[in-house]
Amino acid sequence: MNIIPGMGQDTPELEKRIIVAGVGLIGGSIAAAIRKRDPDCEVIGVGRCEARLTSAAKAGLLTDWSTQYSEDLFADRCCVVVCLPVHLIGREVCRIAELAGAEVLITDAGSVKAMICAEVAQHGAAAERFVGAHPIAGGEQGGFEHADAKLFQNRVCVVTKPGSSSAAEQLAERARRFWQQIGCRIVDMTPEDHDRVLALTSHLPHLMAAVTTAVVGQENFSLAGSGFRDATRIAAGDAQLWTAIMAGNRDPLMDAVRSAEHHLAKYRMALETRDDRQLMALLSGAAEQRRQLDNS
Amino acid sequence: MNIIPGMGQDTPELEKRIIVAGVGLIGGSIAAAIRKRDPDCEVIGVGRCEARLTSAAKAGLLTDWSTQYSEDLFADRCCVVVCLPVHLIGREVCRIAELAGAEVLITDAGSVKAMICAEVAQHGAAAERFVGAHPIAGGEQGGFEHADAKLFQNRVCVVTKPGSSSAAEQLAERARRFWQQIGCRIVDMTPEDHDRVLALTSHLPHLMAAVTTAVVGQENFSLAGSGFRDATRIAAGDAQLWTAIMAGNRDPLMDAVRSAEHHLAKYRMALETRDDRQLMALLSGAAEQRRQLDNS
Repeated sequence: MNIIPGMGQDTPELEKRIIVAGVGLIGGSIAAAIRKRDPDCEVIGVGRCEARLTSAAKAGLLTDWSTQYSEDLFADRCCVVVCLPVHLIGREVCRIAELAGAEVLITDAGSVKAMICAEVAQHGAAAERFVGAHPIAGGEQGGFEHADAKLFQNRVCVVTKPGSSSAAEQLAERARRFWQQIGCRIVDMTPEDHDRVLALTSHLPHLMAAVTTAVVGQENFSLAGSGFRDATRIAAGDAQLWTAIMAGNRDPLMDAVRSAEHHLAKYRMALETRDDRQLMALLSGAAEQRRQLDNS
Repeated sequence: MNIIPGMGQDTPELEKRIIVAGVGLIGGSIAAAIRKRDPDCEVIGVGRCEARLTSAAKAGLLTDWSTQYSEDLFADRCCVVVCLPVHLIGREVCRIAELAGAEVLITDAGSVKAMICAEVAQHGAAAERFVGAHPIAGGEQGGFEHADAKLFQNRVCVVTKPGSSSAAEQLAERARRFWQQIGCRIVDMTPEDHDRVLALTSHLPHLMAAVTTAVVGQENFSLAGSGFRDATRIAAGDAQLWTAIMAGNRDPLMDAVRSAEHHLAKYRMALETRDDRQLMALLSGAAEQRRQLDNS
């Protein structure tokens, strides 16, 4: 058993069974990380497609799998991680909570939090078992075939504590431990703060990369260098998943897009008015900020 | 002597002396590539700062250096590559042409072409010796300390043929050979076509990355993932160099920025009107295009 630092004097109890609902890139990588770090832990995949689940088990990611939930799937003490597209997570958490005992922890890996937490909060059994989470890691290529046990290594995982009671704190602590176990650094946030910041750090960059790709156009790609390649890489991500994320974080993302429009207009005006001093001020401000990220 | 494929039956004559005007990342990488591929070739650096030139020579990039041009610097047959910020290139080419003999080829590595070619065209001696070029490669970190002999390996170099005479074609062919020698794939274009395409594939992505960086803001960087990192990496580039590039390609870049504004507004409107079908259409169009780049 791994000793996790900062966990007090009692060795924390690790989960004995992890149920991964949705075995794609994220679910598969969670499974891979658990299999690697705690070989005694059962890792059970739940999904719709038998063939895919069989393949994931053959690939060594799962110890078992099922295409449906049943009460006996949820052992006395187990942790269910819902790794579905964001618009399906709330409903799935509620479905699971109806079958799961009081000892079951449910968490998720969704890129938006307020929408999901609000849906779960309206469902008593789900609210008592759920701690929202968002491990900030991913990739453009979906599917468990791209799963990587190190995907979460040293990545931030935002955890949204479900309330201020001691029961809520205990549940949150158990969720933090789970995400730490697969390599994450924990940051506590409210669902609303998470969504506002992620609209900026993740959803806006994706949207901007998509805009850049469309404006440049395939016909000009032969003259694109590594700068264009890197700047637009994320735009290749699954459009359906990203539509759900953006629609699920509509208001914060609209604010971010309006800021971007405002800022882009500043560049256009500097070019139109031949105000190279302003152009330089805009570019050097961004360059200084971006260099902070490399230094951090 | 290297045999360069596709050059006809006569083994082409390689340059015996390369003069690199401006020994930064690009000039330094050209020097490194020449030193590696043709150790017999002299590589002479010209710049303002003795200490920097001495260091570049010690680093093995230069066989000699000078802080000023003189007629004897330009051997009978040599090639001068001007690797200065774009707003200084035209003037420098004209200065060099006043001292250089008829056998001297002058080329450049500037990211804009129309402005430079127009300035050179007005100067008889310069026009007879100059072939504009743009090797599409670079990096955020300037200075010869980051020079890389492989920077141009298999990268496109746009060459702008200075006219339709057979003398112009011969000169262009000599320039193509030079850039091929350090690893480039040659694409012939007019200066105007180059600038229009590069406004899209290079200058707009830089500007968009700068906008994204500024809108996100340093205070949120702790929650930024690898997507944000990659999408904004280019924004850390030297603001002074990029101001000169953008100001030097003002009209094509303004067109590109207006297209981006138009496209960004489409996303905002799709979000505002809750038109998720349109959001999906925009995102999937971009994703399909971007994937073409990975497949190409």
